[in-house]
Amino acid sequence: MKKTLLAAGVAIVVGGVAGTALAQVKPEVLVKQRQAVMTLQGKYFGPIAGMASGKVTPYNADVVSRSATYLENLAQMAWDGFHESTKGGKNTNALPEIWSQKAKFDELSQRLQTETAKLGEVARAKDEAGVKRQYAAVGKVCGACHESFRQKL
Amino acid sequence: MKKTLLAAGVAIVVGGVAGTALAQVKPEVLVKQRQAVMTLQGKYFGPIAGMASGKVTPYNADVVSRSATYLENLAQMAWDGFHESTKGGKNTNALPEIWSQKAKFDELSQRLQTETAKLGEVARAKDEAGVKRQYAAVGKVCGACHESFRQKL
Repeated sequence: MKKTLLAAGVAIVVGGVAGTALAQVKPEVLVKQRQAVMTLQGKYFGPIAGMASGKVTPYNADVVSRSATYLENLAQMAWDGFHESTKGGKNTNALPEIWSQKAKFDELSQRLQTETAKLGEVARAKDEAGVKRQYAAVGKVCGACHESFRQKL
Repeated sequence: MKKTLLAAGVAIVVGGVAGTALAQVKPEVLVKQRQAVMTLQGKYFGPIAGMASGKVTPYNADVVSRSATYLENLAQMAWDGFHESTKGGKNTNALPEIWSQKAKFDELSQRLQTETAKLGEVARAKDEAGVKRQYAAVGKVCGACHESFRQKL
């Protein structure tokens, strides 16, 4: 229930107050903030992927649950940072396709939120088999978005 | 209830798996991750403080609720990054007192988590008066910790 209310809140924000406020945030600050989100998504997806794939042992359901909840929250935080004003900026690997193929980008950003929410659910339920299925779905969206919209590193 | 379980998870992590895993994370990565948390805490405390203090109008309970929930999660994320291996590192404003006055630092980090959890509660309840009281308590902990443990900027 709380999650649903939150999701509704996000939708309101995109079209409302935050839209206005964002116009005043400097592009370099927006870039720094969205990169911070990516850094932390990596921090918390790392242990989940490690344990779910068996590369990190033993599997710790408490660590997975906590990390997945953080990841679910983080997965909502980057998107308002991809403001038009940041297009072509320095110190970023974001490709201009983000804006020229906006619908595709938005769809992937939405999918990340959906898939991480599902991961959070199975992780908090301590459903290890569910986590082992769902972490791959999350990794797939990360990869798909980076493939199309991030400069090759 | 979910929050309580999460808090318990955090306690387990500090003494358990993450403790071992952390020893393998490079100090510069730990610094980058904890700085990312600070960046995002700023991103989400900003609108709350702005609206609660009346500097940003109108007050938007949905934005405040969403931001406070993110902040509550973020307030748990920085602490394992203050590993001994990062002491005296470059590109950080963290003072050595973090380790020489560990008990005080830990107490403040705990207080931030407690105060942001209270803020999240009143924010989700759309209790505007409660937010206007509680945001100041959160700001006070930020300030207290920076005063003692962050290099003057």
